Amino acid sequence: MDADAAAALIPAGANVGMSGFTGAGHAKAVPSALARRIRAAHAAGTPFRVGVWTGASTAHELDGALAEVDGIDLRMPYQSDPVTRAHINDGSMEYVDVHLSHVAQMVREGFFGTLDVAVIEVSSITEDGRLVMSSSVGNNVSWIENADALMLEVNHWQSEEWHGLHDLYLHSTLPPHRRPLLITHAGDRIGEGSMPCPLDKVIAVVETHAPDANPAPHAPDAASEQIAGHLLELYRHEVRIGRLPAALLPLQSGVGNVTNAVLRGMLDGGWRGLTAYTEVIQESMLELLDAGVLDVASASAMTLGPEAAARFNDEVGHYRGRIVLRPQAISNHPEIVRRLGVLATNGMIEADIYGNVNSTHLMGSRMMNGIGGSGDFARNAFLSCFVSASTAKGGTISTIVPMVSHVDHTEHDVHVIITEQGIADLRGLPPRRRARLVIDNCAHPDFRAELHDYVDRATHGGAYGLQTPHLLGEALSWHQRFVETGTMRR
Amino acid sequence: MDADAAAALIPAGANVGMSGFTGAGHAKAVPSALARRIRAAHAAGTPFRVGVWTGASTAHELDGALAEVDGIDLRMPYQSDPVTRAHINDGSMEYVDVHLSHVAQMVREGFFGTLDVAVIEVSSITEDGRLVMSSSVGNNVSWIENADALMLEVNHWQSEEWHGLHDLYLHSTLPPHRRPLLITHAGDRIGEGSMPCPLDKVIAVVETHAPDANPAPHAPDAASEQIAGHLLELYRHEVRIGRLPAALLPLQSGVGNVTNAVLRGMLDGGWRGLTAYTEVIQESMLELLDAGVLDVASASAMTLGPEAAARFNDEVGHYRGRIVLRPQAISNHPEIVRRLGVLATNGMIEADIYGNVNSTHLMGSRMMNGIGGSGDFARNAFLSCFVSASTAKGGTISTIVPMVSHVDHTEHDVHVIITEQGIADLRGLPPRRRARLVIDNCAHPDFRAELHDYVDRATHGGAYGLQTPHLLGEALSWHQRFVETGTMRR
Repeated sequence: MDADAAAALIPAGANVGMSGFTGAGHAKAVPSALARRIRAAHAAGTPFRVGVWTGASTAHELDGALAEVDGIDLRMPYQSDPVTRAHINDGSMEYVDVHLSHVAQMVREGFFGTLDVAVIEVSSITEDGRLVMSSSVGNNVSWIENADALMLEVNHWQSEEWHGLHDLYLHSTLPPHRRPLLITHAGDRIGEGSMPCPLDKVIAVVETHAPDANPAPHAPDAASEQIAGHLLELYRHEVRIGRLPAALLPLQSGVGNVTNAVLRGMLDGGWRGLTAYTEVIQESMLELLDAGVLDVASASAMTLGPEAAARFNDEVGHYRGRIVLRPQAISNHPEIVRRLGVLATNGMIEADIYGNVNSTHLMGSRMMNGIGGSGDFARNAFLSCFVSASTAKGGTISTIVPMVSHVDHTEHDVHVIITEQGIADLRGLPPRRRARLVIDNCAHPDFRAELHDYVDRATHGGAYGLQTPHLLGEALSWHQRFVETGTMRR
Repeated sequence: MDADAAAALIPAGANVGMSGFTGAGHAKAVPSALARRIRAAHAAGTPFRVGVWTGASTAHELDGALAEVDGIDLRMPYQSDPVTRAHINDGSMEYVDVHLSHVAQMVREGFFGTLDVAVIEVSSITEDGRLVMSSSVGNNVSWIENADALMLEVNHWQSEEWHGLHDLYLHSTLPPHRRPLLITHAGDRIGEGSMPCPLDKVIAVVETHAPDANPAPHAPDAASEQIAGHLLELYRHEVRIGRLPAALLPLQSGVGNVTNAVLRGMLDGGWRGLTAYTEVIQESMLELLDAGVLDVASASAMTLGPEAAARFNDEVGHYRGRIVLRPQAISNHPEIVRRLGVLATNGMIEADIYGNVNSTHLMGSRMMNGIGGSGDFARNAFLSCFVSASTAKGGTISTIVPMVSHVDHTEHDVHVIITEQGIADLRGLPPRRRARLVIDNCAHPDFRAELHDYVDRATHGGAYGLQTPHLLGEALSWHQRFVETGTMRR
């Protein structure tokens, strides 16, 4: 049927699980049709909103289209869309920010209510009726298993060669029935290449012919290049002293300029035999595969800009055995992250002098995107780095602050902080020594004196205890000043 | 040799790894002898301090004795001793507060420097020269493997029947060589009952005859009984709706009055076939084993008061197959915690209205004990509960606050908060709904109106964004008021 006919089957108030992990493999036609339907209902004075569950962020034609018509009442588990973000922060959309590896389990337990409809993009349906995923897996297996009704978007744009690049673990269950996940190398497979289609659930099949929709990556700015340089130097140091093998350990990196710069930096320097165990494969990672630097990459999605996506789509089969796409419950699973000893690199909004990291909330209240998989990886990583430029918003914000305004990664889980200024390696250090290092190595010079002054006054008389000296009346004053005056500077 | 002769072999500035996880299986003679030596050195004007690494907290004769003579320069990974705590908070002792499951890995990587000497209590040495641990395992395997020199305290007080109750995983390694840990039931064994003794490292063998030294548990107070009642009702509810099996899932509980009350509460109510996968086996857990309610308990230590310890010591062999003591890297391992689906219950200092938990710092600066294993369990648990009375210090402190003054467990990792007032089940809820539930169900009535007023003002105009509405100028004002006036009450 066409997308409008399919969208007509989704009732107001439904919870809809959509495929999509970044702008890859997301449902491309039904969400827009649903948005048109919601707009018409609202114009007629009829309330119409749905709950939208996905793998992670999606594309404008899903999150943006539905948010623009005020069609989402609750969104989870991650987003990065400007309109969605605006609704979350003006209080008109509820948002549950969840570790990506926890979503499938929580849905199965019923904490978000019934999953009424799943809308899943597939690249093809095999002759024996099995579903072949496309450029992301995300929560597709979980949505298909848990939804009351299933809509399939068969996207003819997607390569017919996808079969064999996915590893769908179909035995996820709740304890006490869980079994060990026997992955000991990034490329190991523990599942199947496609999954059976529950025919009795299928209420619509919609054919599409639409490309994935990730933005092309920006060229890295100077700060990103400097941060990448520091991180690569750290890796070389760890190899030199024998703490990392020459082929490193499986790389994980969040999406973004810095990690693109890091990965591009690995094209030179003689790296060989690397692996990745991560959430998304970006263009820079694909370049490492093409260059023979990276042997194999495991992820849950291909996050490629339009040109790279089109090129990759023509050559999907060529990457069989070197790219494995898994459900996000497996790509981000703590068991595997810990065992493999992943090298995690994630962006942050701010860090404080004692090593706590805020990944989600601007000024403690305003949601940016969400924690995504950063917690899945950071807590269990062999080496967990958080990266950001030392200032933001034209230098008015210091990303190194006395106390973060929200904590997503605690002092116990943050190994290394990197800004363009340098590296603070916090492993094994007690709090007051961490503070000196973070200020001297990572803070922007304009803010260093004031940060040292804060610690000095807290340490000499001001604080209630000297394990982690804080002046509670001042700890969040930098953020408060920004809210009131538009700058953290005095 | 005697303990003084052994202590004479420990040089000033050494890092010393001691056995001990709670006042169980801790080195009992050498630490006191070392304290005497340090006191004499200080009296003679000679500086003498050491780094002290353990499994977790120990007993007064270890932590207390060394802290009283100002003999510790850096302590890790956990403590609960009043003198040690005072030194940490007056800034004279450095303290690194580490997830207990991460310690062995970090030591192996060298982040705390060289482990110069290990002092390990054993219950016996077998005829073929293997070491049999006693009432705790903690980091013993790691200390023995990593230390330059080894001292053994053979404690004749400990039962000779300990052999067979330990499961020593001797294949811990760093990635990329880690293998799956094939534990799928709390009682499964993946290691050996004893470990080879590296004879070339042994520089002292000291015979002792001293009991373990845990305090007798207090009778639970009314608040603890009420909290226990709420938690048991939650378990019954989860069983009723089919989200937990009738035999529950493996229990984990921190040490303390509340968890004692919970476990005692399980003696009645028809529970059968339960298991525990936890850090410490307390008296109440032993009672559950004796009563046939609990089938098997896995932990890293036996934390029994003097009478129960003496009684247990006479019957150790009787528990073979029903008690398994493991290295803390395994008892707390995220891989196993996640797979088994542990039901975690841990105490807290305070929680905030959005579900962030502070387990470590009074008023954001003063260290209480440490995070211990709470993070290992909470992040990966199937159900993670944090418990506390709703007030402390004679009602001057509300343990439910607008914003916690330190975060050890983020909003993403806290499933349920319980006080004597009731339960806030936060699973699946967005922040503003969490706030209402935490205030109405968990805060003490004296503080509820002020908490609601805070959220209302933050939500209606005050906050920078409405995902997690905060008033940054007030968020920590309750703590600041306590520091200034001795009460959070206006």
